[in-house]
Amino acid sequence: MLKIQTVLTPLLLQLHDLTGKVVVVIDVFRATSSICVAFAHGATRIIPVATPEECHRFEAEGFICAAERDGKPVEGFALGNSPFSYMESRIKGASIAITTTNGTQAIELSKKAAVVAIGSFLNQKALCDFLIHQQRDVVLLCSGWKNNFNLEDTLFAGAVANELKNDFALADDATVAAMDLYTSAEKDLSLYLRKSSHAHRFVALGIEKDISFCLQQNIYNIVPVLKDEFLILP
Amino acid sequence: MLKIQTVLTPLLLQLHDLTGKVVVVIDVFRATSSICVAFAHGATRIIPVATPEECHRFEAEGFICAAERDGKPVEGFALGNSPFSYMESRIKGASIAITTTNGTQAIELSKKAAVVAIGSFLNQKALCDFLIHQQRDVVLLCSGWKNNFNLEDTLFAGAVANELKNDFALADDATVAAMDLYTSAEKDLSLYLRKSSHAHRFVALGIEKDISFCLQQNIYNIVPVLKDEFLILP
Repeated sequence: MLKIQTVLTPLLLQLHDLTGKVVVVIDVFRATSSICVAFAHGATRIIPVATPEECHRFEAEGFICAAERDGKPVEGFALGNSPFSYMESRIKGASIAITTTNGTQAIELSKKAAVVAIGSFLNQKALCDFLIHQQRDVVLLCSGWKNNFNLEDTLFAGAVANELKNDFALADDATVAAMDLYTSAEKDLSLYLRKSSHAHRFVALGIEKDISFCLQQNIYNIVPVLKDEFLILP
Repeated sequence: MLKIQTVLTPLLLQLHDLTGKVVVVIDVFRATSSICVAFAHGATRIIPVATPEECHRFEAEGFICAAERDGKPVEGFALGNSPFSYMESRIKGASIAITTTNGTQAIELSKKAAVVAIGSFLNQKALCDFLIHQQRDVVLLCSGWKNNFNLEDTLFAGAVANELKNDFALADDATVAAMDLYTSAEKDLSLYLRKSSHAHRFVALGIEKDISFCLQQNIYNIVPVLKDEFLILP
């Protein structure tokens, strides 16, 4: 039986051999949610880059540039990391370069995998169908917060595990724990996540509506994947 | 308010500054449980060491030597890692040198803390009282399995967080998650842990009775702490 494993923070990815596997990169608040929004609103391709400086270099090539650090948009960039900013009309047909505190680094670390897919509550069902069709072992990579564990990414890993538990073996304790946390929280994810450290940060940043938006399940029937350097819709 | 944080595997300890804090080292199956058993049966001092070779060197000085790797006793040593072996009459008054796959490494990594204490379900209540009296921030360090997350150590971290939640702020998402896992599992820890990867290993090793023993709560009213190189009862 194919296996699902969960990596609770990028720092733990070094314990895993990704060869031949699908990695799902998860950064619920907000990189992978915003990436889904962008594709759902017509973005053509998105390149995840490591630094704001690198991001700027793509501007000359006609990319829209997006940068976030510590939960805030970086000055001098057209976009930050709020999902709502990826709904604007200029997104249609656009190429986007993006750098964020956690999510884009996690994508970079995943490149040894056979397939890298983008996961969020927004595309949960589409992602699970995609994973079943891949017929490969799956690694759910939680981006966390600066290499620390966070609740929201773990909950989403648990949601995927819960949906795929009849198709895959849950192959490590992290996946079991994530699924159990999800099943205890699923009735009201938003209420549950008020306990999370990120939620406190979000209130401080005044962007609570982003939380509510990112916790909607299955509003987009798409799965962004990495092809060469770019995220695209296959 | 003083804070509790939880480190889900030793690999994540690098994200924490331990200065001035109490670290509780947790290796439920079985190092920290066995250490509690040894002190409860009259051991005088225990030195945790990194390798079986280093462990052997203490034999000449009259130490009883204990070594475990991959869940099995290492050949040529008087003791392994089963709690039952620490109940024998020769333990009374003994100095013990011990090396295990996960627990003793976690103790080594904790030495920058102001206080290093040993935690297990067996001494849960005594540990919690001790932590309240210390009046320091607390870091609960789960030894995990070869740097991977495991359920049993996380459940114990959650048990401590649950008992101390009115005395300390639960200061990170890992502590919240651990507490929620514990409260969903506490009715029958043994049943819950049948889902864990370690339980499967234990069945394979034929040492399931060690699991049941290590899941007993509050049978010993002691808290082993590190003083210089040695674990002792203060």
